[in-house]
Amino acid sequence: MTQLNETHDPRLRSFVPVAPDSDFPIQNLPFGIFRRGGSGSATRARAGVAIGDLVVDLSALAAAGLFDGTPCAGEVRGENGIFSRADLNGFSALGPDAWSAVRKTLSELLRDDNPRLRDDATLRASAMIPVADCELLLPVTIGDYTDFYSSKEHATNVGIMFRGKENALMPNWLHLPVAYHGRASSVVVSGTPVRRPSGQTKADDAEAPSFGPSRLLDFELEMGVFVGPGSTLGDPIAVDDAHRHLFGMVLVNDWSARDIQKWEYQPLGPFLAKNFATTISPWIVTMEALEPFRKQGPTQDPEPLPYLRSQGDWSYDIVLDVLVRTPKMEEPARISRSNFRYMYWNVCQQLAHHSVTGCNMRPGDLLASGTISGPEKEERGSLLELTWRGSEPLQLPSGEERKFLLDGDELILRGWAQGDGYRVGFGECRGVVEPARTSV
Amino acid sequence: MTQLNETHDPRLRSFVPVAPDSDFPIQNLPFGIFRRGGSGSATRARAGVAIGDLVVDLSALAAAGLFDGTPCAGEVRGENGIFSRADLNGFSALGPDAWSAVRKTLSELLRDDNPRLRDDATLRASAMIPVADCELLLPVTIGDYTDFYSSKEHATNVGIMFRGKENALMPNWLHLPVAYHGRASSVVVSGTPVRRPSGQTKADDAEAPSFGPSRLLDFELEMGVFVGPGSTLGDPIAVDDAHRHLFGMVLVNDWSARDIQKWEYQPLGPFLAKNFATTISPWIVTMEALEPFRKQGPTQDPEPLPYLRSQGDWSYDIVLDVLVRTPKMEEPARISRSNFRYMYWNVCQQLAHHSVTGCNMRPGDLLASGTISGPEKEERGSLLELTWRGSEPLQLPSGEERKFLLDGDELILRGWAQGDGYRVGFGECRGVVEPARTSV
Repeated sequence: MTQLNETHDPRLRSFVPVAPDSDFPIQNLPFGIFRRGGSGSATRARAGVAIGDLVVDLSALAAAGLFDGTPCAGEVRGENGIFSRADLNGFSALGPDAWSAVRKTLSELLRDDNPRLRDDATLRASAMIPVADCELLLPVTIGDYTDFYSSKEHATNVGIMFRGKENALMPNWLHLPVAYHGRASSVVVSGTPVRRPSGQTKADDAEAPSFGPSRLLDFELEMGVFVGPGSTLGDPIAVDDAHRHLFGMVLVNDWSARDIQKWEYQPLGPFLAKNFATTISPWIVTMEALEPFRKQGPTQDPEPLPYLRSQGDWSYDIVLDVLVRTPKMEEPARISRSNFRYMYWNVCQQLAHHSVTGCNMRPGDLLASGTISGPEKEERGSLLELTWRGSEPLQLPSGEERKFLLDGDELILRGWAQGDGYRVGFGECRGVVEPARTSV
Repeated sequence: MTQLNETHDPRLRSFVPVAPDSDFPIQNLPFGIFRRGGSGSATRARAGVAIGDLVVDLSALAAAGLFDGTPCAGEVRGENGIFSRADLNGFSALGPDAWSAVRKTLSELLRDDNPRLRDDATLRASAMIPVADCELLLPVTIGDYTDFYSSKEHATNVGIMFRGKENALMPNWLHLPVAYHGRASSVVVSGTPVRRPSGQTKADDAEAPSFGPSRLLDFELEMGVFVGPGSTLGDPIAVDDAHRHLFGMVLVNDWSARDIQKWEYQPLGPFLAKNFATTISPWIVTMEALEPFRKQGPTQDPEPLPYLRSQGDWSYDIVLDVLVRTPKMEEPARISRSNFRYMYWNVCQQLAHHSVTGCNMRPGDLLASGTISGPEKEERGSLLELTWRGSEPLQLPSGEERKFLLDGDELILRGWAQGDGYRVGFGECRGVVEPARTSV
């Protein structure tokens, strides 16, 4: 339903060298927030776009007047312009026309046949920075973080483990995208170490609960979509308008302490088991960049109620890899490969459902998918499922076994949509497990 | 454990006339954010303190240099001083010494034997505004909103209704303060109308769910505490330090759609049933003002794990009234009287538990208590309990009956701690139910 944008043209080439397997060719142009090393005003956090191994400083391009022809011209000016701030909330609030115009401008500026930036050595030196010299920060200030539970395979696996095959899916699951409110304060950017949480757990045969470090620390392979323009309290977002409110996507690792979760979650849902850290990848890949990879979603049976009936294809073909590297391993080893297209409920349905009561959405709200498991065993998106509650430990190339994550393990998510000769990728979402605090 | 502050002296009197049953005598001095009517810079949102029927403009006192002797002297200066902003997050981040010094200064300035403000007609005219001429706004920007479930009577009532007497309390309930993450974006200030939400519900005898306005709209009588200084990700707040992180309290009505809740909440907890609106009272009553009303809490048996063992008395004797006014009633009628001291888990235990995994807290985070029901039938904090799921409708003085809230009904919470000749009150937390949208 959206016209093919010229940035999707596989023949499009940039004067910036980009490896064929790079996540960040000119067809991608994801947005993020970065800070340069050094001192002084140049180190202030500001907006950037990734291409190859470079970060393009949008505040520098704005200062050079390069967005003057876009609908954001008035918004990018001055010290508090939308690209000079420490988050992308201002830009994401502007909506699809503004996002598209900025991407088009960037795409033109970065083409190999456009001399404007290519031949301006001074501007290139100030505005194009090796990513190795940058610190990547959280791209938005997250107002509310919501976590869905939209993979049927995941919900079924967990259901079988905890309630048996007959009652695997709850009666509501096929009728609505189940979700819960998560913790926004502890969403961190890729690379932030994650401390093993301590909390209450209770063994099945114990009389009383005990306190200590979680012994069943897990990851959850998820993706998240950021809300762009928000909505007013009391006014739902219709499912057919939902896509206009979605800015872009990131990888999400919703770290989970399974033993804490098991004891605490009745009757109000997960709380401490998931609020100690949620890691996201730093670059927001726009929905526009993902447009060529939209696919039909799974057949929904029973047919959803009218407010959830989305027209068109709103699934996305995004390959998702999970890798682990223990302290004994030189290279990370892949332990799962899933795909975002397995999601039963799509992002438009999620947003329509979330707001149908009149719950207001704000720019920067994060809607995560829930664990994305595929139909095959090696496509499962958590250790809980991959090792079937620890009963079938993973065998790693180092000769080690893993049921759950141990201290020092690094967990890495990667994701990309494969185009014809290029990739629209997400970079990495990684975190190392640090030992629990020895005292509270 | 805290010394009696002179602001607690019942003999203390202000030159501002204050009725004996006013919520806002000189012993209270709650903080809020307000905006004056009219146009120009005077209408900008800023910080105020309530006394009697007046709002004291703290930005005006700051401009007059009246906080120069406090530890906040550097923080209150200039156009972006902490009292010139549209939220109290900056002030609440400063901690107990700063809060106490500002309250002491205000208490001295407002005394009837202090001529400084009393006899400065110009400053009084600019800094002391009838509350009737002010719009009261949300006092803080809420980062994360957490809702506990800490009233044993409430949890027991709900448990009996849904699971029977034998299994009323879940096995974890006496061991930890159960809670879930709520929705921050839809927390609104008293007076904001609340639109009846629409959503999915399923009757027990229906084959499939249907969509429409909630027919079981309820209130929940709660109180909330605002976090002052936050904590770093990975570092828990010890239960004995928790009180230093608590700024003050408000009344909370956690509006709930019981029919939506029943269908959606398994297995991840309430979501749409509670995210359409949460109303809070506008004035934050400081923990210091509540100090004389600290009381011993209920005996906790079994004894909590060490990380939850709070020393001293951390319950508060706060009378809580619930009133309803239907469109046919001139005056609201009281339908419940409860007390905050019924809470099984205290605010220090809640904060220690919330952060024990290392979940970071931020200034402005809101921790609500959960519904506060007392042991008697007329002390129940929701219509679900008061009418026992609608089976025992309330009889109102107008001759009307209510099982749940109907369109046009106004729900009002009031609360106060009763001192010797004065009250430390919370004002009101009110909202009118508006009809559902006719289309989505």
